Amino acid sequence: MNHTDDRPPTTVGDRPVALADGQAHAWTPRTARIRFREGLAGPTAGVAAGHTQANLISVPADWAYDMLLFCQRNPKPCPVLDVTDAGSVTTVLAEDADLRTDLPRYRVWENGELVDEPTDVRAHWRGDLVSFLIGCSFTFEWALTAAGVPVRHVEQGRNVPMYVTSWQCRPAGRLRGPLVVSMRPVPPAHLSAAIRESSLLPAVHGGPVHCGDPAALGIDDLGRPDFGDPVDLEPDDIPVFWACGVTPQAAVTASRPPFAITHAPGQMFLSDARDEQFRVV
Amino acid sequence: MNHTDDRPPTTVGDRPVALADGQAHAWTPRTARIRFREGLAGPTAGVAAGHTQANLISVPADWAYDMLLFCQRNPKPCPVLDVTDAGSVTTVLAEDADLRTDLPRYRVWENGELVDEPTDVRAHWRGDLVSFLIGCSFTFEWALTAAGVPVRHVEQGRNVPMYVTSWQCRPAGRLRGPLVVSMRPVPPAHLSAAIRESSLLPAVHGGPVHCGDPAALGIDDLGRPDFGDPVDLEPDDIPVFWACGVTPQAAVTASRPPFAITHAPGQMFLSDARDEQFRVV
Repeated sequence: MNHTDDRPPTTVGDRPVALADGQAHAWTPRTARIRFREGLAGPTAGVAAGHTQANLISVPADWAYDMLLFCQRNPKPCPVLDVTDAGSVTTVLAEDADLRTDLPRYRVWENGELVDEPTDVRAHWRGDLVSFLIGCSFTFEWALTAAGVPVRHVEQGRNVPMYVTSWQCRPAGRLRGPLVVSMRPVPPAHLSAAIRESSLLPAVHGGPVHCGDPAALGIDDLGRPDFGDPVDLEPDDIPVFWACGVTPQAAVTASRPPFAITHAPGQMFLSDARDEQFRVV
Repeated sequence: MNHTDDRPPTTVGDRPVALADGQAHAWTPRTARIRFREGLAGPTAGVAAGHTQANLISVPADWAYDMLLFCQRNPKPCPVLDVTDAGSVTTVLAEDADLRTDLPRYRVWENGELVDEPTDVRAHWRGDLVSFLIGCSFTFEWALTAAGVPVRHVEQGRNVPMYVTSWQCRPAGRLRGPLVVSMRPVPPAHLSAAIRESSLLPAVHGGPVHCGDPAALGIDDLGRPDFGDPVDLEPDDIPVFWACGVTPQAAVTASRPPFAITHAPGQMFLSDARDEQFRVV
């Protein structure tokens, strides 16, 4: 593990939820939220097919402008789907959801250090928290599948591999940090469709930031992701890298705000929104 | 003029710059900015072809979070291309530009009232202003033209007509207000291309918010726009309505922040960015 001070700690990998329950892909988002509220945890790729998943980061109101500006200045990793009012635990993306309980697993941060990874953050919640829900690349995996593009990590029953890169985000106020990417191996014959289909969904990271040599992103070894699981490449597969909603967590590690709550990588918020709503054509 | 308290005052129509100088479409953005800095004013549709135009709104830093959140919650009318640091008069969209002098005409607002419409705002500038540059639908007119869609207001040498609608934006903090739209008449045979081409440019308002009956938007008379000029429809033309970057000015009128500076409707900031940069595929 090539772990520096700017790199957030890796996840203890839960089993993917979609594998833990063979029916999870057919769940409604509400069913998924209730199961997670009851304590089920694990990566959510493939859960509640066709419904939009979201990254979470909650920061004190005093940091909300910096975070919103960081997102605006870095729209590929941080496409904002909703921002709550301070203290609110609900979102327009799912009217009955409670953001403190309805994600599979959370991370709690103090001064940039990971201090807890609970499945419920009611004990950590503060009245001054502003929550950001940020688009997730799991959303476009359905579009890839529909276009015939194989999605290796789903085929292999693993969490998507994610890497902290050497590329720096554009700073905003007190926030700075590196770009985090997810990687999917794509056969050359499917590369055009993979780029086109993801590009049509700019609200969930859009098209890839890089295709090919991982060294261009400062990634030494695809087999050792910073988060998630390594995934096996077929012989001709091209590694394709998309900006990732874990980027705000890397900014937390690098910028050390006094307090933050995030989702655990790969363990997303299941919204009631449908992926198709975010497709531009 | 159906003018209520929530409706910003209409423009005194300058002559379109592109008509005032037959070469304006071939200007570089820098040439356009220099001409505007020297005092030239007027609508900028068609100026510096292929380069991205932007709406401007500058608010005191105390109002910046509300404005950025308003933009995030209303991305169709308010797609943010850049936000400056407080007091800065420059933007990443054009490194040598001065936001106080380089637009053709400005509007200065106090407590929601229009108090001045100068061609230079150096005398009004304050060190606590945060400037928002917001995508403009003039950007996709080139894509429409390239796809063979006639652009009536350009053909007729007029500013695009803009209307305050009965649709309310999603409020954010102290900011609320109605959606403002621009209207372009489109022949039925070109409607599909007009929707597709604009949808591929979500950073400059994307696809239309409505096609057809103006009454659905609370517009009584297409011949009496709230800003810009009326445009003549050909017999079969369908009125097509796009969200408009004048919407923040309507929010200023409705929400009465103590101070704001904006562009004058249709008289945009000429950036160095190229329209193609904002196309998703």
